[in-house]
Amino acid sequence: MSSLNGSVTIPEGFTALEKRSGFLRNCGEFFVHDEQPILAVRLQAHHLNYVHIAHGGFLATVADSAFGVILRRQSKSQTVALTVNLNIDYIGPVREGDWLEAHVEVLKNGGTFINASCLLKVGARLVLRANGVFTTWKGKTPCT
Amino acid sequence: MSSLNGSVTIPEGFTALEKRSGFLRNCGEFFVHDEQPILAVRLQAHHLNYVHIAHGGFLATVADSAFGVILRRQSKSQTVALTVNLNIDYIGPVREGDWLEAHVEVLKNGGTFINASCLLKVGARLVLRANGVFTTWKGKTPCT
Amino acid sequence: MSSLNGSVTIPEGFTALEKRSGFLRNCGEFFVHDEQPILAVRLQAHHLNYVHIAHGGFLATVADSAFGVILRRQSKSQTVALTVNLNIDYIGPVREGDWLEAHVEVLKNGGTFINASCLLKVGARLVLRANGVFTTWKGKTPCT
Amino acid sequence: MSSLNGSVTIPEGFTALEKRSGFLRNCGEFFVHDEQPILAVRLQAHHLNYVHIAHGGFLATVADSAFGVILRRQSKSQTVALTVNLNIDYIGPVREGDWLEAHVEVLKNGGTFINASCLLKVGARLVLRANGVFTTWKGKTPCT
Repeated sequence: MSSLNGSVTIPEGFTALEKRSGFLRNCGEFFVHDEQPILAVRLQAHHLNYVHIAHGGFLATVADSAFGVILRRQSKSQTVALTVNLNIDYIGPVREGDWLEAHVEVLKNGGTFINASCLLKVGARLVLRANGVFTTWKGKTPCT
Repeated sequence: MSSLNGSVTIPEGFTALEKRSGFLRNCGEFFVHDEQPILAVRLQAHHLNYVHIAHGGFLATVADSAFGVILRRQSKSQTVALTVNLNIDYIGPVREGDWLEAHVEVLKNGGTFINASCLLKVGARLVLRANGVFTTWKGKTPCT
Repeated sequence: MSSLNGSVTIPEGFTALEKRSGFLRNCGEFFVHDEQPILAVRLQAHHLNYVHIAHGGFLATVADSAFGVILRRQSKSQTVALTVNLNIDYIGPVREGDWLEAHVEVLKNGGTFINASCLLKVGARLVLRANGVFTTWKGKTPCT
Repeated sequence: MSSLNGSVTIPEGFTALEKRSGFLRNCGEFFVHDEQPILAVRLQAHHLNYVHIAHGGFLATVADSAFGVILRRQSKSQTVALTVNLNIDYIGPVREGDWLEAHVEVLKNGGTFINASCLLKVGARLVLRANGVFTTWKGKTPCT
């Protein structure tokens, strides 16, 4: 049911995200499901806010990163999606030690915009709903 | 026109934010204007995304934290505002070295909800617009 | 496959919405599915905007009304849900004659807020995604 | 201080909106300020919801139309702005007889997207905050 990655216990089917931007690296370890469109993270003390639940900005980071990772994986040309609009409803608290999963659903991809939504869950409990509008990055190829 | 705080040059009128949650500490130094409702940060490499501009999640963190810091400063009883909804439009890129300011405006405070909006700027250039709906934290007093 | 209601042809399983507010009556006939959480409308000329597709305000009206109708039907005490935040992504055009369905999903109901999302579709084609945060109306019982 | 337009009393400086889409005509009379970026309407019974305050869909219509009217007036080429995302916070009730003004501010115009925000007020009282992301209509010229 679980394996060990550094000090973080992770469920089966997830692999540590290797290619990470500077900000994500600074936020700690992230995990992506091998088949399903899910990004996950184990909540740690450096993800919390002033009242000891997950910081709203960290949860927004998880949602925005989940969109980016899943859209890139689904794209043949590895294009980068830029966020145009991000809308987030905070529904329930996330606490230290929780295994937090971001389930992404791409609603439309192909025209000028990409529309996707994302549910953040701890087990079966819904804690956040995010919705994003994206456009394809037209700039030079990113250096890793 | 500027003073030195660690390795970060900051404009006059800003003071380093001392009380920071675990997540904000992990994101680096933040600065708050002594009189105006502004939270600011100097962009560093660990704030960037995959194409070397500020990560959408980091910018969401700046906006959400600006709301929190300014609402707390304006509150007599130091109540904590919990984010119910956060809506963000990404308008322009922010790059390493940029001095990023989040200007908060509280639209309504007093009923069940608090409504506030926030503009993120680099100099006069608008880079993000955020809007938040908040409710007052009813839980026990946060430990610092 | 269809029945006739006034001059509007409607699919089986839908019944005309009887209890309508002044604004909905002014917008024309609406239909609710007998079992599924769906509000529907046949697009007519007086629903269109300046470029002859459905007006963004009308589509917002369909989404907001769908939330209201379905939340009321699911509520034992016939409580009225007041909209706190409504977020809408316009994904594709809707044209005169289209049968437009609003499929509502209640994500959370029971605390201070109700969270629900809604997809507007013409056949299998997704044309709009809406998301709402609601709170329960504490005022006096509405007169019909 | 006021003049008479049909049965609706309107403040000075406002002129009835002549070019209206099918949906706006169906919603009644709208007024635009001769100099300032304001769309206005006098609330009537056919704008109300089930609990006798302005219907959320009607208020969304006022905001979306205000964006459209003001963006078109500020555009040299009379281009039509299509709504990509509309985010609305409902802040206070609007009642029959209220003179409702939608004050538009264009935050950015020139690139792929147009960003604008809008405050709805009854006198000095803020009742709604809307935010929109728009893109320029690339289709054929609309017929009036």
